[in-house]
Amino acid sequence: MLHLKRIGIQTYGERVAFLSATCPLYAPETFHNLYRVEIAAQGKRIMCTLNIVENGHLLAGDHLGLSSSAFDELGLPEGTPVSLNLAPPPQSLDNVRRKIAGSTLGATDIGQIIADIAAHKYSKMEIAAFLVACAAFMTEDEVLALTRAMAAVGERLIWDQPMIVDKHCIGGIPGNRTSMIVVPIVAAYGLPIPKTSSRAITSPAGTADTMEVLANVDVPVARMQEIVRAENGCLVWGGRANLSPADDIMITVERPLGIDTPEQMVASILSKKSAAGSTHLLIDMPTGPTAKVRTEEQALRLRKLFDYVGRALGMSLRIVCTDGSQPIGNGIGPVLEARDVMAVLNNTADAPEDLRERAITLAAHILEFDPRLKGGAGQARARELLVSGAAADAMRRIIAAQGPAAAQINPGHLVHEIRAPRGGTVMSLDCYRIARIARLAGAPAAKGAGVDLLKKVGSAVRQGEPLYRLHCVLETDCQFACEMAAREPGVLIQ
Amino acid sequence: MLHLKRIGIQTYGERVAFLSATCPLYAPETFHNLYRVEIAAQGKRIMCTLNIVENGHLLAGDHLGLSSSAFDELGLPEGTPVSLNLAPPPQSLDNVRRKIAGSTLGATDIGQIIADIAAHKYSKMEIAAFLVACAAFMTEDEVLALTRAMAAVGERLIWDQPMIVDKHCIGGIPGNRTSMIVVPIVAAYGLPIPKTSSRAITSPAGTADTMEVLANVDVPVARMQEIVRAENGCLVWGGRANLSPADDIMITVERPLGIDTPEQMVASILSKKSAAGSTHLLIDMPTGPTAKVRTEEQALRLRKLFDYVGRALGMSLRIVCTDGSQPIGNGIGPVLEARDVMAVLNNTADAPEDLRERAITLAAHILEFDPRLKGGAGQARARELLVSGAAADAMRRIIAAQGPAAAQINPGHLVHEIRAPRGGTVMSLDCYRIARIARLAGAPAAKGAGVDLLKKVGSAVRQGEPLYRLHCVLETDCQFACEMAAREPGVLIQ
Repeated sequence: MLHLKRIGIQTYGERVAFLSATCPLYAPETFHNLYRVEIAAQGKRIMCTLNIVENGHLLAGDHLGLSSSAFDELGLPEGTPVSLNLAPPPQSLDNVRRKIAGSTLGATDIGQIIADIAAHKYSKMEIAAFLVACAAFMTEDEVLALTRAMAAVGERLIWDQPMIVDKHCIGGIPGNRTSMIVVPIVAAYGLPIPKTSSRAITSPAGTADTMEVLANVDVPVARMQEIVRAENGCLVWGGRANLSPADDIMITVERPLGIDTPEQMVASILSKKSAAGSTHLLIDMPTGPTAKVRTEEQALRLRKLFDYVGRALGMSLRIVCTDGSQPIGNGIGPVLEARDVMAVLNNTADAPEDLRERAITLAAHILEFDPRLKGGAGQARARELLVSGAAADAMRRIIAAQGPAAAQINPGHLVHEIRAPRGGTVMSLDCYRIARIARLAGAPAAKGAGVDLLKKVGSAVRQGEPLYRLHCVLETDCQFACEMAAREPGVLIQ
Repeated sequence: MLHLKRIGIQTYGERVAFLSATCPLYAPETFHNLYRVEIAAQGKRIMCTLNIVENGHLLAGDHLGLSSSAFDELGLPEGTPVSLNLAPPPQSLDNVRRKIAGSTLGATDIGQIIADIAAHKYSKMEIAAFLVACAAFMTEDEVLALTRAMAAVGERLIWDQPMIVDKHCIGGIPGNRTSMIVVPIVAAYGLPIPKTSSRAITSPAGTADTMEVLANVDVPVARMQEIVRAENGCLVWGGRANLSPADDIMITVERPLGIDTPEQMVASILSKKSAAGSTHLLIDMPTGPTAKVRTEEQALRLRKLFDYVGRALGMSLRIVCTDGSQPIGNGIGPVLEARDVMAVLNNTADAPEDLRERAITLAAHILEFDPRLKGGAGQARARELLVSGAAADAMRRIIAAQGPAAAQINPGHLVHEIRAPRGGTVMSLDCYRIARIARLAGAPAAKGAGVDLLKKVGSAVRQGEPLYRLHCVLETDCQFACEMAAREPGVLIQ
């Protein structure tokens, strides 16, 4: 037996076991062409990639090291006797190989793959193989099986209420923080809407990042359900709920590879919503030349796939194609977006109109899930709940229930204005580029960092007039963001 | 600037850089979602995956650690000031994304991908994405472009002789060591045949492993060319020549994923042979129910692809489908195979007839590349060169030129016989299973380990008579191999 040791190395998702080259129990050459081992102790087991440590002062011969996350996952103290075994590749890799070879997989095949991925039995290389093979083609039934399998391996939320509504935006539009207005409107109306959101991965802010400016978002599941029972809504970080652990793992491969197929998107979204117990779901699908969905044809294909899978899962789905041609609101980055959201909820004069109208439209669709509300009456009802201050009250109650934010944060103090190189009319704003500039400015890691738009499409500008303002917290971020904005500001003036 | 430090950890192909969490120059959260960094110093640069070291005694704050292979690759002393940069993903990943999305790539696109892979700019996950996307479909012209690109990034051998012949077996048949007989026959005839071979990756022996029992196989390229000039042939390890570095990298992903498409096989083989300067190439394609190529249809498809790419490269190709229904010769494992080879070359009475006849047939095809030899005359000429001892003399000269083996090795001293559970006739031998048993017995790491077949297909056996003999060096290997052989010996008797 070897003795467990924690090796303080963060390996970002790849679990690594370390074995000494002088280990008397195993000849390292045995492992030479293998890359996966299983560490077991006290009925617990964990799959790791094996690295061999060459010299004794990093690791003693009778120790077995685990990288930080692997050690934490195994959850046993240092010194625990552990056994090390060659881990045969997961059997379900044969299913992946069949998919690579062009076969259509059955629900059982896909279920085995997803269960093994969720159990961390796949390396990133193997996950990539599965995802890329799926990107070549997937039948609708394969997407359905994938969605079901992903929901099955996670937690499931059980609700007393017969109707649980939810919304999801497929993303790609900076500043599009409608959830933080839609949830209070719907909650004020009286439909339960337990909104879980993600943090940004490649964007300048996720809804969880922006909500975190106003309230605690790291809420345990039981407490989240209490809050929804009392207040009809919440706006929490979804990472706590563990609704689709396989998705959380696959995303670490999808993002760097830029795999963003309709099939993966549908399975990812609907597996989470199904596990969260949603009965009625509104999907906001912004479409525009620099958005995620760029053509009518793409939008149609995605809509059909959502419909097919949603119906099979017994979910009522409404898909709304919205204008994704430019950012929504003015602020891009957590603090700046939170400011816009509160301006809309508080009906202040400077509240961004596009954000308000978009939120009302989306909320209206959700209200109309209620059979008691007449078709078309949702819009007026949603507006009334916003204008009357009922939505703002609901938001205050939700914030109070979730708990206060860790600290009050202001927009970044380093401010730099990007000015119009010529006079004219703003013809377009590039969502992708402006998001990148906001990210370089420091968002979302620096919550106060980001871009504050001063002109939108259609605005008249004079030469030298500011187009947008960069807010940064660090000098170096400011420099990177300014350089990129100077090179290509993402604003077309004619 | 950070100071370079060697971290004695072998990471098996993944190059890893280690940065301290207390590093004053970089905020580790900057790197949080990134996984590739570039380390640069003195005009040299290397791409790595970044790990963060949590505590100070593994790595000081102002040090930058590199895993063993990354450190050796950079080739600078410890303490060298180095810079660390976020490495943007290689541009050619956009080409991979287009391939994933279903596009056909041009020669330039493929050239960029292969150049970046050869420069270690791709992670294994990214290589997997490229390979699996290619497995979905590739046009013949994409395969040609891939072959050319793979040959272009490696070394190229230049020969004075106008005609350079070679042979390659696509593999899958244990004991099929014909190269070690074909090369001496062809060399004795007078055609230059610079044979480079691989070591075993998943099989019990590669030709380089078996030849190493008789001679040094780690021969520098210049010396190898001298030997071929003097002796007309050689049998060396191909790893030294660096003929297709991209292939060497891709294979570390293909093997564990089991990607073995005709397209990758053709590109891998022909890129190496093209870089090696071969003008005439014989391809041995064993076909059988447990071989790599299992059906006539697969064989035909592979043959057509070889023909298309070979012709475009200006190579004369002859493809021979051989019987791949059972192992060739008796020994499986380096020492046992070398014994069979020498028995054939020395015309001893117990030389395995199937190995001899297979080698003569293949050598005959190569001799007939010579326009001076009449069609059909190759067989008699090859046999004459073998029977007369001319081939054995050529082998002795090649061994002398390459240098002696490190030590004389005998078959493993731990011997265990696997006996027939019933009497009857041997109906089939399972190539795949017998190879696995030989590997469990210790081959190729233990050169004396392996399987020695005592019965072949068609042999009559009595109950309890030995079918094959296991040779092992280690007790544990013996136990594993015996267990597997007992469970399923791979011999069908009826």
